[in-house]
Amino acid sequence: MKVGIVGLGLIGASIALSLKDKVDLVVGLDNDLEVLRIAKERKIIAYGGTDCQSVLSDVDIVILALYPKAIIKFIQDNKKCWNKNQLIIDVAGLKNEIVTTIQMELPGVEFLGTHPMAGREVSGIKGAREELFLGSNFIITPTEKNTQESIAKVKELALLLGVKNIYEMTPVQHDQLIAYTSHLPHLMALALVSAYEEGSEQIVGRSFLDAVRVADINENLWTELFLANKKSVVTELDKLIAELVDFKKLIAEDNVLELTEKIKGIKIIKERIKQ
Amino acid sequence: MKVGIVGLGLIGASIALSLKDKVDLVVGLDNDLEVLRIAKERKIIAYGGTDCQSVLSDVDIVILALYPKAIIKFIQDNKKCWNKNQLIIDVAGLKNEIVTTIQMELPGVEFLGTHPMAGREVSGIKGAREELFLGSNFIITPTEKNTQESIAKVKELALLLGVKNIYEMTPVQHDQLIAYTSHLPHLMALALVSAYEEGSEQIVGRSFLDAVRVADINENLWTELFLANKKSVVTELDKLIAELVDFKKLIAEDNVLELTEKIKGIKIIKERIKQ
Repeated sequence: MKVGIVGLGLIGASIALSLKDKVDLVVGLDNDLEVLRIAKERKIIAYGGTDCQSVLSDVDIVILALYPKAIIKFIQDNKKCWNKNQLIIDVAGLKNEIVTTIQMELPGVEFLGTHPMAGREVSGIKGAREELFLGSNFIITPTEKNTQESIAKVKELALLLGVKNIYEMTPVQHDQLIAYTSHLPHLMALALVSAYEEGSEQIVGRSFLDAVRVADINENLWTELFLANKKSVVTELDKLIAELVDFKKLIAEDNVLELTEKIKGIKIIKERIKQ
Repeated sequence: MKVGIVGLGLIGASIALSLKDKVDLVVGLDNDLEVLRIAKERKIIAYGGTDCQSVLSDVDIVILALYPKAIIKFIQDNKKCWNKNQLIIDVAGLKNEIVTTIQMELPGVEFLGTHPMAGREVSGIKGAREELFLGSNFIITPTEKNTQESIAKVKELALLLGVKNIYEMTPVQHDQLIAYTSHLPHLMALALVSAYEEGSEQIVGRSFLDAVRVADINENLWTELFLANKKSVVTELDKLIAELVDFKKLIAEDNVLELTEKIKGIKIIKERIKQ
């Protein structure tokens, strides 16, 4: 298996590090020469460059590890780069727009959307870690345009990364669920930090530190993710706000019975979510 | 130093485990005979019982490790248990009502409020861990009724538990800040689980798991904590809801510029909170 990675940021370079000793070849494309220099110096890739055709013409699988909008633009700008024997996948945190657009723009080349559920609070090649995907969840969003062979090949790739679970769902399902499981926790962390109380750093425990951990996000990437998934994100925010308003009401009216019952019910739901 | 612990639940028994090889004596009071049996069997305490005077008459420091309301009731029910050479402290997560009430009810005995910022998602003696307080924050809330000697003695005790930082503040300050740093993250975790989306357990990453971790709380204790700190909790909930509404507005109107700037500003605040 020969793998070409487009975009050697945190995710792309971590994939390269994780795969390089397990597949025949890992090459990288990036438009930042300094990033390419680091990638070659740290032996993250066998070779790399800025020209799509010269770097990627020989690989079996191309992994697009760019921001969502940049993925679509890259495909549109490089339509002649691909051949029919290649499988193209992406690893962006949103799937519907990307999968729909690329499968339409590239009718002769197979494209499959994936989302490795891993990340760090740092971005860029310097944050890359070989073990980033160990034990994580890996989502694939095949459509009727994907072959069983390609789906099997991508699952094999995910296992090489060390993921724990591989789940299949439609691109639309993915984006709805991700608004709840990822966009909402990130917005909660941001909102909590934004509500900062002077002096409170003296009195934080683990609950607070865990709750604000993911507030250290890349503002450009996440603004793009929130806006590209606007409808689902707004729906989930509305649900969360309604829950907080309900808690506020129960607390304000000293409703011991309903508050206790609500917390008990939530603990039962949480049991189901546990991994 | 001889220490008597009232209430051998998660916190009380963890304190006993942590102190037993570092002080002269650790004894325990509990009204549950099965808990006392476990405490003696696991050598968590040297001896224990259900009668205040017979268990505690010989100790220098009494640590009240009960729920907030139970602490006040215990003091009111056992006014003859104490002598003037003893220092009584509590470890509850709320301070103002407890400190004010007990310092008034027990004019001849010194009482000092403390709050060790540690816990687990399990309750009771079976969850007790010697290392529970290692590296944590420890708050003390002295008033003009406390002596420097007692404050020094409690700081020494906290260091024996292995805490990282010891902070002093007034009981009122403590309760205001704790609404933000503890009650709010717990309510956020509860609200997020309560907004559960079917199927979402397939697509959770670390951000979600961290955000819901503390939803496994003891419903009786936390209902009591939220209600006893109602005014501050409602104020903090209002601030958090306003932040979420603001995010919703910026996302709904595709406001890339303000959203990006807001996230950037939040990351600067977060740097200050980091420990």
